[in-house]
Amino acid sequence: MDKLDQLIHALSRLPGVGKKSATRISYHLLRSDIGYVKTLGELIQDVPVSIRRCKECGNYCETARCAICSDLRRDRKSICVVEQPQDVAVLETSHEFNGYYHVLHGVLAPLDGVGPNDLNLQSLIRRIDEYAGEELIIATNPTVEGDTTALYIKKLVEHLDISVSRLALGLPVGGDLEYADRLTLARSLKGRTCL
Amino acid sequence: MDKLDQLIHALSRLPGVGKKSATRISYHLLRSDIGYVKTLGELIQDVPVSIRRCKECGNYCETARCAICSDLRRDRKSICVVEQPQDVAVLETSHEFNGYYHVLHGVLAPLDGVGPNDLNLQSLIRRIDEYAGEELIIATNPTVEGDTTALYIKKLVEHLDISVSRLALGLPVGGDLEYADRLTLARSLKGRTCL
Repeated sequence: MDKLDQLIHALSRLPGVGKKSATRISYHLLRSDIGYVKTLGELIQDVPVSIRRCKECGNYCETARCAICSDLRRDRKSICVVEQPQDVAVLETSHEFNGYYHVLHGVLAPLDGVGPNDLNLQSLIRRIDEYAGEELIIATNPTVEGDTTALYIKKLVEHLDISVSRLALGLPVGGDLEYADRLTLARSLKGRTCL
Repeated sequence: MDKLDQLIHALSRLPGVGKKSATRISYHLLRSDIGYVKTLGELIQDVPVSIRRCKECGNYCETARCAICSDLRRDRKSICVVEQPQDVAVLETSHEFNGYYHVLHGVLAPLDGVGPNDLNLQSLIRRIDEYAGEELIIATNPTVEGDTTALYIKKLVEHLDISVSRLALGLPVGGDLEYADRLTLARSLKGRTCL
């Protein structure tokens, strides 16, 4: 297998990149300027070296503590639990939450062999205690695994004096009733709010 | 801008990869095994170093001459002109052509400032002469630029004793008349073949 085939093969292992896209990207790299190609290769190689997990929340960062955990102006009473590091960035774009995050790096999935010990749960209790947390917002995805994980965490912190909540389910803003699925409609009716 | 943002930015410059896909790929790399990430980075960095153009046909290869140009069992009388290196791989999958290729690395596009000198045309005449070529198949894309380039090459080799042809236009195999566009239908009628 020559270098080009090797590159195409390696690229096609990326998410959302099939054989055709990998081929297209490879030929694009062959036409690109050398500086860009070198930089891209370096940045990729650098990933396992320079990016690690924040020892507080588990989010990815280049220092021991991420920018959010280092920010002392945030509200220590509120902790938001998310599945993946990218969820932190997504929630931050809403500008609605001013507390700290806690990244699980997965969800409970017994069928895939993912149990509580595979998740970043050990430090959660310690952090709630240390931060004197008053509210735990569980922002796992509204899937079977996300629901299970949320319930597990609720049980886990039962003995602590902390209120536990989950993100609201309902119609997306700007959405159309016509295109909403049955389950979402049911949840948005159940969770209807006073005007 | 931290490393992760830099990586996302660099990845989003790839064809077919937007900001969202770039973010997804970046987080995927963070979860991937170090060996794979290192190899991918190395392969990308290696692109400008180890892959160059075949001095015969212009296709990408790791040696001075590509595998096809080094294959002496192929038919030297037939040369197929294509726009891009990836077109060679595509045509090879048809197993219909046993001659040699010639890669232009582009098409004539005066509006984009691409003239005959920007294409790999210099060596074409030399190769036809050297190979004692009898047939030139122009396999540029059926677009305005591809058509213009085909006509230009036809003019260029006019003084040589070589027959020039282009790929047939018509309905795709397995296609449906209903979904064929007007122009394709017109060309497939015009080029109808005896049964």
